[in-house]
Amino acid sequence: TSFRIAVIPGDGIGKEVMPEGLRVLEAAAERFSLTLEYQTIDWASCDYYEQTGSMMPADWREQLAGCDALYFGAVGWPAKVPDHVSLWGSLLKFRREFDQYINLRPVRLFEGVPCPLANRKPGDIDFLVVRENTEGEYTSLGGRMFEGTEREVVIQESVFSRIGTDRVLRYAFELAAGRARKHLTVATKSNGIAVSMPYWDERAEEMARHYPGVATDRQHIDILTARFVLQPTRFDVVVASNLFGDILSDLGPACAGTIGLAPSANLDPERRFPSLFEPVHGSAPDIYGKGIANPVAMIWSGALMLDFLGRDPALADGTPWLRAHDLILRAIEIVLADGPRTPDLGGDAKTEDVGRAIARLVRTL
Amino acid sequence: TSFRIAVIPGDGIGKEVMPEGLRVLEAAAERFSLTLEYQTIDWASCDYYEQTGSMMPADWREQLAGCDALYFGAVGWPAKVPDHVSLWGSLLKFRREFDQYINLRPVRLFEGVPCPLANRKPGDIDFLVVRENTEGEYTSLGGRMFEGTEREVVIQESVFSRIGTDRVLRYAFELAAGRARKHLTVATKSNGIAVSMPYWDERAEEMARHYPGVATDRQHIDILTARFVLQPTRFDVVVASNLFGDILSDLGPACAGTIGLAPSANLDPERRFPSLFEPVHGSAPDIYGKGIANPVAMIWSGALMLDFLGRDPALADGTPWLRAHDLILRAIEIVLADGPRTPDLGGDAKTEDVGRAIARLVRTL
Ligand SMILES: CC(C)[C@H](C(=O)O)[C@@H](O)C(=O)O
Ligand SMILES: CC(C)[C@H](C(=O)O)[C@@H](O)C(=O)O
Repeated sequence: TSFRIAVIPGDGIGKEVMPEGLRVLEAAAERFSLTLEYQTIDWASCDYYEQTGSMMPADWREQLAGCDALYFGAVGWPAKVPDHVSLWGSLLKFRREFDQYINLRPVRLFEGVPCPLANRKPGDIDFLVVRENTEGEYTSLGGRMFEGTEREVVIQESVFSRIGTDRVLRYAFELAAGRARKHLTVATKSNGIAVSMPYWDERAEEMARHYPGVATDRQHIDILTARFVLQPTRFDVVVASNLFGDILSDLGPACAGTIGLAPSANLDPERRFPSLFEPVHGSAPDIYGKGIANPVAMIWSGALMLDFLGRDPALADGTPWLRAHDLILRAIEIVLADGPRTPDLGGDAKTEDVGRAIARLVRTL
Repeated sequence: TSFRIAVIPGDGIGKEVMPEGLRVLEAAAERFSLTLEYQTIDWASCDYYEQTGSMMPADWREQLAGCDALYFGAVGWPAKVPDHVSLWGSLLKFRREFDQYINLRPVRLFEGVPCPLANRKPGDIDFLVVRENTEGEYTSLGGRMFEGTEREVVIQESVFSRIGTDRVLRYAFELAAGRARKHLTVATKSNGIAVSMPYWDERAEEMARHYPGVATDRQHIDILTARFVLQPTRFDVVVASNLFGDILSDLGPACAGTIGLAPSANLDPERRFPSLFEPVHGSAPDIYGKGIANPVAMIWSGALMLDFLGRDPALADGTPWLRAHDLILRAIEIVLADGPRTPDLGGDAKTEDVGRAIARLVRTL
């Protein structure tokens, strides 16, 4: 079986880390005899917007027909295109229109990465954030009234559907049930946000009944952020709404040293649409062009992609794909502990040096 | 001039830390010849709810008429009363009905307090969170449709008024303008929350024009939480919506060691209504009754109250009130560095030991 990957570098350092992501994928593909076909996409970028006035061509769906996954760099270049235009016109559009309702974001402290938390060692921080990725607080619903006057008022609506809420909770419970610790933290703020969050709590309680083996812990987002800093070892799987998941999946990686290493998987677990794999970091205009961006998040996102593809029920045997994921992770661990480092980690290596080092290990380990 | 204080211990450890707060206020009052009258309130507590079926009497406003400030312990006892009932029936009601639109929350790392961040010393973390306290994301507006069915949908509305947005921004800009660093961070999430947050940004930009001396920095809430951990020294004043301010004012104190020390001032800066001063920590049912709660947040909140009262334009000379605030802070510093400690800080002192030690210093320093 072969899978088809749309390669979308996007903007800024997305274009610099993508070649390293591909380099490592190639090394893994060779090693494990995986067949990947690539299709490079130059739209979903602010350059494309400058030329055409939109972020994506009208036939973007057709162009991506037949793709199994999108391997995505980063999008956004505020000096050229306002963020809401570039993001809602590409990344957020993919998440919604391809119904990638799970945003899975692993958080891990690695050996060799300076940790901002005192006295934490690898193993102390190792959990998964499961973020709802299609609804909730991220909407354009609402509006303004009495505009420009003293009594101007703005209403913003959040939308939580039963389907949308249940499916992300179910995914998180399943994930927790399959892990050693079987622990799930449910983020909420039902003591302040009085309509949607009590609903979220109710659905979580209902779902918990079907997973008696999973220990569930409901926490308000305010104290939960505090606990990420004070007690990171207590977390195993954390499930959260779109906004809360966004916050926790930046805060978590920061507690583990840097958001520069964090990967993410935007999944349609039912595989009706292609899933999207991207670093959590953005396009970083401030360092673009120097060749010093850290490619680990891009490479790790590629590993998540192989893992997801390998679990496709259409595959006779997905094991090589899962082993490829594990080997890439192992190579990342080794390079972070003891290999070339980009300046964000205190070294003077180039993006390419890190990519080559990881690819070499994937070939030889 | 004398001020009248409503003393509202509330629930749980609120009842244990309140006597220490009052002890220190009395010491400061004697030392600086401040006149404070107290009126003790037993409602706004879950005990009262159990007896009467509501959190506050019908004539609560009348009973508080003539009060200049509310000195508030903590409210909530989930085993007796659901949180949304106890909170919306007391604390959140005060904030709204007394239009305490500023929630001011200082964040500081003290000598002697173990910091969860590596290599941070006192001075590295010292900023103020200004939280909008009456509108925004905290509402009961919205509802459910298609209830109990597969297509169930829940809409939650957030409300941002021009008046509500401008007044909290203005307060924060004024505050920043009066400080040495003159730096203001504006929390947002306009790239995802597409109606209210762009409005918030617009109003902040407009307000910034009137404060050319203040350096303004707009940051999305996700990366902002990461920076609290990675770069806490960069913050001076941080202004945020109700929800984002709630999150940042738990996360900030956690970065500075514990939310157990954090005080807060819920202010009506126009003094049409009494302002409310309360620890950020809650009623902590798990440690209630042991006499080991840390009273510093309560005591510090009392100092914030004296400071606010001392700035009342009706006072001929507010200096003694401001000096009382400063002296209490100094006493807190000394006791945290070198005095009795409650178990949360690794000691075995009682709540009362800490209160007495601070009061003694306030009398003698
Ligand atoms: C860029 C932004 C819209 C996006 C989000 O908030 O989802 C990003 O922060 C992320 O976490 O992927
Ligand atoms: C108890 C809760 C409603 C409250 C809030 O979210 O405002 C608390 O967390 C706070 O920060 O004062």
